[in-house]
Amino acid sequence: MSDNSVNIGLLGLGTVGGGVAAVLAQNGAAIAARAGCPLRLKAALVRDLGKRREAELPLTANPEDILGDEDVHIVAELLGGVEPARTYVLEALRRKKSVVTANKDLLALHGEEIFRLAAANGQDVYFEGAVAGGIPIIAALRASLTANNISSVMGIINGTTNYILSAMTEQGREFEAVLREARELGYAESDPTADIEGLDAARKLAILATLAFHTPVRLPDVYVEGIANITAADISYARELGCVIKLLAIARNTEEGVETRVHPTLLPERHPLATVRDVFNAVYVVGDALGESMFYGRGAGALPTASAVLSDIIQVARNRQAGAQGRLGLDADRRLPIKPASDYKSSYYVRLKVKDEPRVFASIALFFAEAGISFASIIQKPRRNGNAEIVLVTHPCRESQLEQALTATRAYDNLEKIYNIIRVLQD
Amino acid sequence: MSDNSVNIGLLGLGTVGGGVAAVLAQNGAAIAARAGCPLRLKAALVRDLGKRREAELPLTANPEDILGDEDVHIVAELLGGVEPARTYVLEALRRKKSVVTANKDLLALHGEEIFRLAAANGQDVYFEGAVAGGIPIIAALRASLTANNISSVMGIINGTTNYILSAMTEQGREFEAVLREARELGYAESDPTADIEGLDAARKLAILATLAFHTPVRLPDVYVEGIANITAADISYARELGCVIKLLAIARNTEEGVETRVHPTLLPERHPLATVRDVFNAVYVVGDALGESMFYGRGAGALPTASAVLSDIIQVARNRQAGAQGRLGLDADRRLPIKPASDYKSSYYVRLKVKDEPRVFASIALFFAEAGISFASIIQKPRRNGNAEIVLVTHPCRESQLEQALTATRAYDNLEKIYNIIRVLQD
Repeated sequence: MSDNSVNIGLLGLGTVGGGVAAVLAQNGAAIAARAGCPLRLKAALVRDLGKRREAELPLTANPEDILGDEDVHIVAELLGGVEPARTYVLEALRRKKSVVTANKDLLALHGEEIFRLAAANGQDVYFEGAVAGGIPIIAALRASLTANNISSVMGIINGTTNYILSAMTEQGREFEAVLREARELGYAESDPTADIEGLDAARKLAILATLAFHTPVRLPDVYVEGIANITAADISYARELGCVIKLLAIARNTEEGVETRVHPTLLPERHPLATVRDVFNAVYVVGDALGESMFYGRGAGALPTASAVLSDIIQVARNRQAGAQGRLGLDADRRLPIKPASDYKSSYYVRLKVKDEPRVFASIALFFAEAGISFASIIQKPRRNGNAEIVLVTHPCRESQLEQALTATRAYDNLEKIYNIIRVLQD
Repeated sequence: MSDNSVNIGLLGLGTVGGGVAAVLAQNGAAIAARAGCPLRLKAALVRDLGKRREAELPLTANPEDILGDEDVHIVAELLGGVEPARTYVLEALRRKKSVVTANKDLLALHGEEIFRLAAANGQDVYFEGAVAGGIPIIAALRASLTANNISSVMGIINGTTNYILSAMTEQGREFEAVLREARELGYAESDPTADIEGLDAARKLAILATLAFHTPVRLPDVYVEGIANITAADISYARELGCVIKLLAIARNTEEGVETRVHPTLLPERHPLATVRDVFNAVYVVGDALGESMFYGRGAGALPTASAVLSDIIQVARNRQAGAQGRLGLDADRRLPIKPASDYKSSYYVRLKVKDEPRVFASIALFFAEAGISFASIIQKPRRNGNAEIVLVTHPCRESQLEQALTATRAYDNLEKIYNIIRVLQD
């Protein structure tokens, strides 16, 4: 090819790949003006050559047709999952092609290997689409906020769980019913386990923490709890306490090491993340110079993710024309300790059912006091059948302290049930 | 100098310049790791050599000591205002130095001239600090969102006015009292005219619109109204209507041309911008692939602006090492028409005092109906002394239609007073 086009090989032509083809077809002229040259989709790797597709471009079922094509300059990996994505990405880099990927699973597990090979071959790896879809949080952490010592990154980075919790909050409905509806509407996958159990958010958080703190954070380093045991009653009590319940992904750089966790969290209603509803995502970053900042938008879907992938491709094309590829690595050049989950400090919301008898509350308060835990709020409501419901919100304590208090509480004969224990965001 | 440092000459060592020196002193090692080389402040241009300062670096009162120094690679222009900043920036570019600036006044008036000279000399001009302080909205528009056809950019981009309107809203106080307090707290300048009258926001909006729509938008193209006539009563009526009042900067790319305006606006309480309080800024961007997104943070102040300026310097230093400077221009390569303000369509909030007599409301409704305007909401309250207060919210209409209705209303003998007319955000 003798023109100055930059040619792209797509690995995968599913939801995101189709979105990339559609946006490039629609905004091609403007995108060429931004990139400094036309961008051309040379071919797409697909599994099923016979399937009808909207995008008009050459299809192949043989990865070598893309990885072995010298006229393909940039490989956009949109397959998802670890293999064969990893093999293809590494092969593309070895053959001096830059890579744009939206694959969080791959980066959360093999980020270091990929960036090492990219550096050795002088190639770019851009991955804006891997976290929070169209929201440019990766570019913010890799470039715009680099003068800061970042102390924390917190986010709502899974759209499915935020949709479910928003619907439960706004409609007073229970988890199972809303999940069923989310599946019917296509907001939840047919197997929603990775979303519901927090694993999808954990993968993204490992990437965000690595970039924010410049130290490798891997998926097994992230403490994870899902949202399946949150009930309408918890959400209603949270509201009484001036809070909403969100699945938060939290990364903190503390003096005792890096702390990364994904769990349901009571969040004050006035916190900027509290107003993030529906399938929207947002990432909240605190830096020493910047102060607080937040990035908000659509965290998934064909077009928002295509926005990220194509903007990455534009930048790689610019770098390529300037002969300036491979300048930006994973930048994880520190080796900070990972803080064990048992050392995390948190405030806790604890909801109990007890026998409605004199001195029951005093006894429970004593179990917490003996573990060195004091309370920030208490709600007690009489219930039927001689039972009472108590909601305690503790001041910050270590998990080991909470365990001590709960062990004593569980052994107490006037306890009927511990409904739920949910962390509360400390300011 | 034989090391691989990138040397920076500061023009100005006031609030922002002092912030840059402080953040570099604190985070210097991490910043060097990001930039790929140490960053050194070689000298700062100041007016008063005798003044005591925190920053320890060589001072000069002669710009030639910086502009003429071959060892200064990047000039950071932090003087503000048009002259002498313009002269110095142009001279720096001519002498093959890249420029980082936080100067909105300069860019809103002379952006094209500066970028033409930068391109001719193969130099970078980065300006993240010029709009919304530490929020990386410039990088988003120049890089991360470039695959999108952007239809609108709206923002709260003046901290002083947002502080004043937030305090009026939360404390029910009047404009003058809050302004006095804001001055005492240092949130408003001793001459707050440019903030209060919307000019500061208009300059920033001209820059945002230029980048978002890739067409030159200059300060005189922006329609501007300030907040001085907003009263506690208007804010209270807005709340009854489910709205807050914000000074919004709005840029839209419409079929009839580019529309840019800064004015007080009734904004539904559920809009993401409605929750932006105090001195915080936020910019809301809608793109065809991305959908809605928002960028939130501290829009001013020494450290947030220094975060933007230093992150820009890191990127220019990276470009310099890769020999890849001058790749990113103003990108205003289109020539879209500017829509005249008289053609804007809007919904309006109109607050009137009328004589409390039969048929008065019917007459007023008729004046609006004759201009082709219908109402979305109406509030009428009896007042003392035989008068009534009426608040009308219109459906969208042209300014010329509103003028027709108001002319008839003003001539009506039962009208006592038109208190205020405020635009309402259309979805």
